[in-house]
Amino acid sequence: MSIAAHVRPDRLQADLDALAAITDPGRPHTRRSFSPRFLEGRAWLTARFQQAGLTTHIDESGNLIGRRAGTTPGLGTLMSGSHSDTVPDGGRFDGILGVLAALEAARAFADAGIALRHDLEIVDFLAEEPSDFGLSCIGSRGMAGALSAEHRTLRAPWDESLADALARMGGDPGQLDTPRRTDIRAFFELHIEQGIVLEQAQVQIGVVDAIAGVTRLEIVFSGRADHAGTTPMDLRQDAAVPAAVIIFFVHQRASALARSGAGHVTATCGVLDLSPGASNVIPRSARLIVDIRVSERPVAEELVASIHAACTDAARASRTTLARFAIQSDTHPTPCDPALAALVEAAAHAQGFTTRHMVSGAGHDAAFVARLAPMAMLFVPCRDGRSHDPEEWCAPEDATRGTMVLAEAMAMRDRTD
Amino acid sequence: MSIAAHVRPDRLQADLDALAAITDPGRPHTRRSFSPRFLEGRAWLTARFQQAGLTTHIDESGNLIGRRAGTTPGLGTLMSGSHSDTVPDGGRFDGILGVLAALEAARAFADAGIALRHDLEIVDFLAEEPSDFGLSCIGSRGMAGALSAEHRTLRAPWDESLADALARMGGDPGQLDTPRRTDIRAFFELHIEQGIVLEQAQVQIGVVDAIAGVTRLEIVFSGRADHAGTTPMDLRQDAAVPAAVIIFFVHQRASALARSGAGHVTATCGVLDLSPGASNVIPRSARLIVDIRVSERPVAEELVASIHAACTDAARASRTTLARFAIQSDTHPTPCDPALAALVEAAAHAQGFTTRHMVSGAGHDAAFVARLAPMAMLFVPCRDGRSHDPEEWCAPEDATRGTMVLAEAMAMRDRTD
Repeated sequence: MSIAAHVRPDRLQADLDALAAITDPGRPHTRRSFSPRFLEGRAWLTARFQQAGLTTHIDESGNLIGRRAGTTPGLGTLMSGSHSDTVPDGGRFDGILGVLAALEAARAFADAGIALRHDLEIVDFLAEEPSDFGLSCIGSRGMAGALSAEHRTLRAPWDESLADALARMGGDPGQLDTPRRTDIRAFFELHIEQGIVLEQAQVQIGVVDAIAGVTRLEIVFSGRADHAGTTPMDLRQDAAVPAAVIIFFVHQRASALARSGAGHVTATCGVLDLSPGASNVIPRSARLIVDIRVSERPVAEELVASIHAACTDAARASRTTLARFAIQSDTHPTPCDPALAALVEAAAHAQGFTTRHMVSGAGHDAAFVARLAPMAMLFVPCRDGRSHDPEEWCAPEDATRGTMVLAEAMAMRDRTD
Repeated sequence: MSIAAHVRPDRLQADLDALAAITDPGRPHTRRSFSPRFLEGRAWLTARFQQAGLTTHIDESGNLIGRRAGTTPGLGTLMSGSHSDTVPDGGRFDGILGVLAALEAARAFADAGIALRHDLEIVDFLAEEPSDFGLSCIGSRGMAGALSAEHRTLRAPWDESLADALARMGGDPGQLDTPRRTDIRAFFELHIEQGIVLEQAQVQIGVVDAIAGVTRLEIVFSGRADHAGTTPMDLRQDAAVPAAVIIFFVHQRASALARSGAGHVTATCGVLDLSPGASNVIPRSARLIVDIRVSERPVAEELVASIHAACTDAARASRTTLARFAIQSDTHPTPCDPALAALVEAAAHAQGFTTRHMVSGAGHDAAFVARLAPMAMLFVPCRDGRSHDPEEWCAPEDATRGTMVLAEAMAMRDRTD
């Protein structure tokens, strides 16, 4: 009997329901990092980890870790997890499924009487979602040594520094700018897809090849706020016009690149602020945010350069000024470990599940853990692609399938040193 | 000595300064219609009207009227005026100059010992600016019989009906849906241009040929709010994309029409709301307001039809839905009386001032008075086109020139029956 057969859907669902119930009242499902509600969820998780026979602690970065020692000392650690914090009104499964599936895998090992050779760690990373400190992936950044002294001085609206908040979570924020771990041999993260690719393709398991890099541009065109009725068309400096040109350009260029086989390429203008924003006033300024995600770094560089050139042209043609063209943030794509990804795929096929290789367009803790160790991610479908939304839903059979593949892949990995 | 020589710049400027000083504290220059501050301005104006030898009353529509009987009973009334209310943080001259110039003209007639043959009326129209009832030009609408029973049930945020507010202003709102006046022989309104045409052309007096019609469209594209990173370009329904196409189309089409000699044509997208408006979420909906102003009615109809066709195409191309295409408001262009406009031009040339024929892209009380009587408007330059803004400024010499032309044109008109 394979390890996957010991995964118990009822136990997994009961855990998902119990954690979903720990939410800010009237706002399903909200457990913001660093909040009392988050700590309430953490207390419940800690108890569940311990009931599964794991010993628990909070690491320096405020991550909750449940650990079971392996039978062969010195082989290192197999780690799996995700995060239990949510966006406001956010997800029931985003992050949570990855933590609880890893916990269920740990229980399945115990139920099957399988003692792993490696140490096993189940992790609830701290604050994966954008936090009130303006930073995401705080716990995984810290573990990877990527939480700089500057990061730790960030302040929340309630005027607490991130360093103080980390200490309040049980962490030890003194030294988080060097990698904290050298013992991790493999990291696995199960997550809902947060997209519609698996659902539309009717595929059960997504095998992730890379986590896309995210480049965020802030673009401001500056014109003149003249009267919409009295200013002739040829005398106006309308900042909305170049902004419109760029929204269309970004969509067309990214679509063409995606069609041309440049890997995963998306580009989105989700924010456009026109100022003053009155129907009878020509826009004085237009501020755009462009979100670019690619699996191949050169594509991001090409896109940014072409958008900059288009902005210069659009400003000139509209007699406006390109007042700002700033890279707000810029992360490179993170490839998953090909051998671990192959293991995940083999584990899925062993259960008879269909798979598809894909790129994660969303960021995940796994991208930071990848700085420390080989990393694999697997996706399961979520209904209608909804995520960060009260409607977010992962069908129980999909949650079970993902957990079975996770457990199987970890067992397979444990057989080699 | 012409009547214009009796216009006293010092007296006009003192009045402009005095009314500018009656403002909400710290918000130059704010006198919102129906407010205690507005009534304070009205009390000052009433006193000034009376000091000029005018008898004052409030008409049914809440307009303040200063009147001096003519020497030939039955010839009818020559009327001039504008409005003393402002937008929030709005103008020092917008409307105010037209009221105070008309008052100065009345004083100049008296100083010159000229008794007009016609009755003379100086008017401060009630609530020309968009009011808290969501309606503008309330007083001139009422005078023209265009204030419907439905209008009078409009309510302000402080839960007062417009009918009650009109009564509070001293009006008699029982019957304002039939024209109130049949005696007006000519109406003149002096106003700042609120644009940059006169200033850029270095012309002193604008002779208005028409007040543009205003057509306002509300357009909503509806798509899907998917994750910006996980949704492939070819599976998205991004509502920002058709909105961008339309902003550009509207600008290009109106520019081409204006170049082609279709009279005054402007079209502006000053409002674009993307929802949810987050950098990592594909816009679910995009709401646009398009403001169209033309001097030739068929041009408005052609523009609306072409924008509608472009919206349909843009929705199809982006796999979004054109969820709304509504004409929010629609007024026809109002031609000025050609004979009166010629009189204004002759009056300007008699003083040696340069003139330019132009269309008013902004709405004015004169457009409603034109339903009752021949109407003329004249513009003077305002600095940098600024209006509805604390920076709004009309140079004293421009205010004087406008007042001289106004007085001269009224005197010329008075010589014929």
